[in-house]
Amino acid sequence: MTSRIKKAVAKSKLFVSEELENYDKGRAMQNNELFQYLSNTEKQIHSVLKSSHVRAYLKPEDILESVFSYIDRPAKRLRPSVLLMAAGALGGPDREELALPAAAGVELFHTWTLVHDDLIDNDTLRRGGPTVHEAMCTAAQNKQSITTNLATEYGRDVAILTGDMQHGWAITSFVDCALESGINSTLILKLIKHLQSYVLGNLIFGEVLDVRYGMQDLTELKDIDENKIVEMLWLKTGVLYKFAGMAGALIGKDTCNFEDDEVQAITQFASKCGTAFQLQDDILGILGDEASLGKPIGSDIREGKKTVIVYESLKNANESQRKMILSILGNRLATTDQVQAVSELFYELNGIGRTRDLAAKYISDAIPYLNEISDSRYKRLLLLWANYMLDRKF
Amino acid sequence: MTSRIKKAVAKSKLFVSEELENYDKGRAMQNNELFQYLSNTEKQIHSVLKSSHVRAYLKPEDILESVFSYIDRPAKRLRPSVLLMAAGALGGPDREELALPAAAGVELFHTWTLVHDDLIDNDTLRRGGPTVHEAMCTAAQNKQSITTNLATEYGRDVAILTGDMQHGWAITSFVDCALESGINSTLILKLIKHLQSYVLGNLIFGEVLDVRYGMQDLTELKDIDENKIVEMLWLKTGVLYKFAGMAGALIGKDTCNFEDDEVQAITQFASKCGTAFQLQDDILGILGDEASLGKPIGSDIREGKKTVIVYESLKNANESQRKMILSILGNRLATTDQVQAVSELFYELNGIGRTRDLAAKYISDAIPYLNEISDSRYKRLLLLWANYMLDRKF
Repeated sequence: MTSRIKKAVAKSKLFVSEELENYDKGRAMQNNELFQYLSNTEKQIHSVLKSSHVRAYLKPEDILESVFSYIDRPAKRLRPSVLLMAAGALGGPDREELALPAAAGVELFHTWTLVHDDLIDNDTLRRGGPTVHEAMCTAAQNKQSITTNLATEYGRDVAILTGDMQHGWAITSFVDCALESGINSTLILKLIKHLQSYVLGNLIFGEVLDVRYGMQDLTELKDIDENKIVEMLWLKTGVLYKFAGMAGALIGKDTCNFEDDEVQAITQFASKCGTAFQLQDDILGILGDEASLGKPIGSDIREGKKTVIVYESLKNANESQRKMILSILGNRLATTDQVQAVSELFYELNGIGRTRDLAAKYISDAIPYLNEISDSRYKRLLLLWANYMLDRKF
Repeated sequence: MTSRIKKAVAKSKLFVSEELENYDKGRAMQNNELFQYLSNTEKQIHSVLKSSHVRAYLKPEDILESVFSYIDRPAKRLRPSVLLMAAGALGGPDREELALPAAAGVELFHTWTLVHDDLIDNDTLRRGGPTVHEAMCTAAQNKQSITTNLATEYGRDVAILTGDMQHGWAITSFVDCALESGINSTLILKLIKHLQSYVLGNLIFGEVLDVRYGMQDLTELKDIDENKIVEMLWLKTGVLYKFAGMAGALIGKDTCNFEDDEVQAITQFASKCGTAFQLQDDILGILGDEASLGKPIGSDIREGKKTVIVYESLKNANESQRKMILSILGNRLATTDQVQAVSELFYELNGIGRTRDLAAKYISDAIPYLNEISDSRYKRLLLLWANYMLDRKF
């Protein structure tokens, strides 16, 4: 990585809004508080999932292995964390604890979308290990002498069914929030309905747009502009963050009123943070570090992913830069040097800068919503968590 | 079709048990009663689905079109019918009406499994039209000039996401049974949990076994026997019929007690009928008629599907018959004449007969369970419905 790019990474870690600046004193200590919370959440979620009664229905062994493969790898668990913090912010530690199965449900819901998304994107790595379809293709080839085509189909089939099973399990986990934790049944039914219609519909809308944008010839990006890309990011990512914040807030406050002021404040906060998360994710896809990200650097470039980075860079490019970018973007066989050259152009042409500014804007728009709720440890954690959306390196 | 095979089809329509013989008087009229009920259910289910609030979340237009493609084609709706008949049998017409969103939920649940199953099996036809992945592949090619590979991937991607959306919608429909129809919330939560863990887990187990059996070399069927094939059929099909019967019974009786005698009677009845349905489906896959089945005849033979028909026929074949069957089974390019020759051997070697006997046995084991419930129009319909499992030609 060149020193110029290193500087860009360092810059992306700066605080971005006045509200956040107020939290700058003793920041190291506070970040420590957030990391402890995230690490504790990771342990809790993992333990809930490992000891679930659903385990008995994960058959045969390839499904059991695949269903747990992403779950068993280290992950940030940002979605269940915001759910739990929101529950704590409006209901204190007791409600936070009761919300645990819902938090596990959100993590499972996110996981099944990753499994299907990885298959759709033909990705080979996730969280530092092979994707489900890749692992099962290899396993089939190792077990019996079959053709590469048959093994690829087996990988595809198991990945589809693994995601389907995790989808079901996510809902089961929400149901447990009522039947086991004793959260109001009507609230849980409303949350499941919202997740399975509004959230799922928007997620799938975003996913199809992503697939379609990916198929479009880069030389004629006439149907795509920055707003459309950001809308697609929100659909693919923001909508589930929004749901996580909302579900936590409703469970925390023990209300079925989705329009409650405090609930709405946390919902909008989480929604905006979700878009910022995805914008930062796109930056890390270019500037990040393979070891900590757990996926190959440059894959966004080789896949020709349509991001704000690409859109802004092409807008600002001269003819020769434009030609250079277009010749490499979407080329699955591009060399490391070619990927590196495009990354540098993305930085030079303000693709990275524009994306970082947008992410920062979403976070600074999100923060004031929290004025609606009382100060507490959970509110502090939510603010640190919002900041971490820009701060994170993986 | 040869006259010998025609006779086999005719024979498969005979009544199979004493209990059913009692219903033989005025059978034509009674069958009319069943067909009117099924036709009415089809209209109701279709109308519930077409007017659903979920429609607003089916975006973009390829998803809207794909989500409705199987739903809009004529279908038997046997699963929602058994749910409604069970609700009527234990609760009368009022409870039957309240169960409608649950019946629509079971139909949607079945539909998403078809969409994913068709992709997994690389099938091209369903209910007389193209499968979702096939239709979307063609649509992509018609819309823009892209490679066949890209179009095939687009078809695959939309089919995965279409099934995912229908899966979510199925659950939403169950939730509506509580929030809109006013069915007990705890019961609906328990049903959703059962569907998303026990039922889904078993369905996926069956699907993976089916994929694996399909990959096994036919010359060494050492891991497969009749019991294993029938178990796989139950997993793939019986378990959802069982759930449909059980859900209807619980909603009809307005109880959360899954172990209630009447509920259990209907549950076991539906479970056994489900296996019979799939056995008859395998017979129709060989002897059926393309126009009424809506899928190409011989596809089971060309796919090399491992059925009781295949297992029994190979068991009884001499060396030259065995060679002949093995040379054609699983050959995707087999001619109509070759498929026809194998079909005749399946009849001659008792593959068809054994399967028909097994289906009949499951139905005659199912019928006595209904002694547990009081006589009514719904009980009569359930008996006719069970008989129809063997009787049906599509």
